[in-house]
Amino acid sequence: MNSIITLTTDFGTRDGFVGQMKGVILGIIPSTNLIDITHEVSPFSVLEAALVMKGVSTYFPRHTIHICVVDPKVGSSRRAIVISAGGQYYIGPDNGVFSWIPSSEIPPTIREITNPDFMLAHPHPTFHGRDILAPAAAHLSKGKSFASIGPVVRDPVVISKPEPRQTANGIRGEVMHVDQFGNLCTNIEAQSLQSVVRSVTFQNLIIEGIRTFFDQVPKGAPIAIINSFGFVEIAVNQGSAAETFGETIGQTVYVEWG
Amino acid sequence: MNSIITLTTDFGTRDGFVGQMKGVILGIIPSTNLIDITHEVSPFSVLEAALVMKGVSTYFPRHTIHICVVDPKVGSSRRAIVISAGGQYYIGPDNGVFSWIPSSEIPPTIREITNPDFMLAHPHPTFHGRDILAPAAAHLSKGKSFASIGPVVRDPVVISKPEPRQTANGIRGEVMHVDQFGNLCTNIEAQSLQSVVRSVTFQNLIIEGIRTFFDQVPKGAPIAIINSFGFVEIAVNQGSAAETFGETIGQTVYVEWG
Amino acid sequence: MNSIITLTTDFGTRDGFVGQMKGVILGIIPSTNLIDITHEVSPFSVLEAALVMKGVSTYFPRHTIHICVVDPKVGSSRRAIVISAGGQYYIGPDNGVFSWIPSSEIPPTIREITNPDFMLAHPHPTFHGRDILAPAAAHLSKGKSFASIGPVVRDPVVISKPEPRQTANGIRGEVMHVDQFGNLCTNIEAQSLQSVVRSVTFQNLIIEGIRTFFDQVPKGAPIAIINSFGFVEIAVNQGSAAETFGETIGQTVYVEWG
Repeated sequence: MNSIITLTTDFGTRDGFVGQMKGVILGIIPSTNLIDITHEVSPFSVLEAALVMKGVSTYFPRHTIHICVVDPKVGSSRRAIVISAGGQYYIGPDNGVFSWIPSSEIPPTIREITNPDFMLAHPHPTFHGRDILAPAAAHLSKGKSFASIGPVVRDPVVISKPEPRQTANGIRGEVMHVDQFGNLCTNIEAQSLQSVVRSVTFQNLIIEGIRTFFDQVPKGAPIAIINSFGFVEIAVNQGSAAETFGETIGQTVYVEWG
Repeated sequence: MNSIITLTTDFGTRDGFVGQMKGVILGIIPSTNLIDITHEVSPFSVLEAALVMKGVSTYFPRHTIHICVVDPKVGSSRRAIVISAGGQYYIGPDNGVFSWIPSSEIPPTIREITNPDFMLAHPHPTFHGRDILAPAAAHLSKGKSFASIGPVVRDPVVISKPEPRQTANGIRGEVMHVDQFGNLCTNIEAQSLQSVVRSVTFQNLIIEGIRTFFDQVPKGAPIAIINSFGFVEIAVNQGSAAETFGETIGQTVYVEWG
Repeated sequence: MNSIITLTTDFGTRDGFVGQMKGVILGIIPSTNLIDITHEVSPFSVLEAALVMKGVSTYFPRHTIHICVVDPKVGSSRRAIVISAGGQYYIGPDNGVFSWIPSSEIPPTIREITNPDFMLAHPHPTFHGRDILAPAAAHLSKGKSFASIGPVVRDPVVISKPEPRQTANGIRGEVMHVDQFGNLCTNIEAQSLQSVVRSVTFQNLIIEGIRTFFDQVPKGAPIAIINSFGFVEIAVNQGSAAETFGETIGQTVYVEWG
């Protein structure tokens, strides 16, 4: 069986923090296929980390172990947990970073990491990623039993994302995330659209309908699409909607149909 | 046989797009040695991607599979292709990103990806990287036959790079790329220099001759060298030519000899 | 035995330099587990590279090979070296990047890379990382003998870091590094603190005592801790000390006890 461990953090890649975590894992199981997801989650943004975890983990095979370290309260009484769900493990702080991971038919089991056999000796209070989460992942991958990691957690921290509201003839949501291209990802999911969309309204702009791909409008023109994570997105063909519309997280987006 | 798949995109590493592609590949062939080349190609820059592909692929062993996703027209009628050349595969949109890959004596064979066995079900129209290119790479790596991927393409899109011109006693080119250090890479290749270079002229500056390595001039002084990709380059020893000379892509560079 | 090779450079990941190095290594030993530590060392900063090497290598297993390419004098007469220390190899320019690697009881052996069997043919004078250091690492990993790589070096370049000074009732140091979160890492090591710390003074601010973890002070408040590399650090809980205090490398920090 292959050992695949993914890493998602807000550490950046400048300082060697991620390098230390990789070293700890490889020290326990040297053949691990270590996969960087991202180390550029905005510092301390549990919501962004939760969106990445939701979007990415479903594409990985069974037995993958995902470590997520966005952990502003590291060292406090917040718990470190492992979630077993859909054949994969998720390891991180109990602060909501795994709020939206894909849940399969069987409810996930969550355990707190308390067994010192899964940790480095003398964990440093500001770097549980290296001293608790990384070794826990490696030991699970190597075959240590999930049940032995610590007690079951029945009240994990769950964060809520802004929920869109139905309107007379559509739905009202907001910009939730701006991606690398400056595309504005809303919180409106494709399956909440009850009919053919007539318009998407944002700031003073009415965008006609929802298109399938960017190049259906001229270069530089705004467009609304369903993005590859399944959300309504406002974009500019071969341009940046973030540059065109400004810093817009939280701004209202209206979708109308019929 | 080892499975090596490289990734070159303009996705950045913030959003989980690359992570999804990695998951898809590992879901098909979990032991793949996934190699990030860069995810920081300037958004939509087919030329930059083509330069990276030209510069990098020649150093990889036979059977390596290179995926390149710089794909502004994703979802339109542009084709997705696989090129078999020099013992390696190149997988990406048919938009010129592979225009300058090393061609061996045997002409490359190009096929369009049309066989759904090489794709995820229901490819998303804005993310062929994840739903078509990544699984195609994984299935090829796992042993599916290249011939079965789709019909032969005889008219791939090829982009042209700015070509330098001969002058009375030298050659006139331009700055083509600015690298991480602020070095200005021109489009003048070493083999086009017909004699010992007397001077390289750029903006109001005449740089004497072409040196071998940076530390041959004082710290902070400008210098012309042949860079490790084989092009004439203007640099500043332990400094940044881009900071000294400004945004200079497209600006003229004169090389004189004799 | 697994082949683990780590990479630390100031190349960034935009240009394909790192990709070329990876290709060279995989061309020699395709199953190498290539681990990116960082490619964002500040350009030409030997001190930063030395700090990363010190902080990271101790976490990796025996037989790991670390390549570090921060090499402003590449192509000059500076030597390329391999250090055998603590069961690991360190490969890079002889300019001090390995000044603070963990030394075990047995003194490290250092050799200059002079044997062309460990290099690509015709190494390019500005890219020894690709043409000398990467193939040397791969050949060592594949089993070529360390003794055959070149002559022993007895006078390696060692750089010194700023050393803190004892004061009447404490110690005076300075800010040595600013990390991804804007935390200010000083050069004062935990073991140099001779008693319970009463205060840490920086600019016009007196911070009371040294805490264990960030969340012991309110969000936005300054705090002094021992960081995960073992140094006294000034931080702001869930904020950036670098934003609060400005560019502070080299600024004085006083620790007082008793």
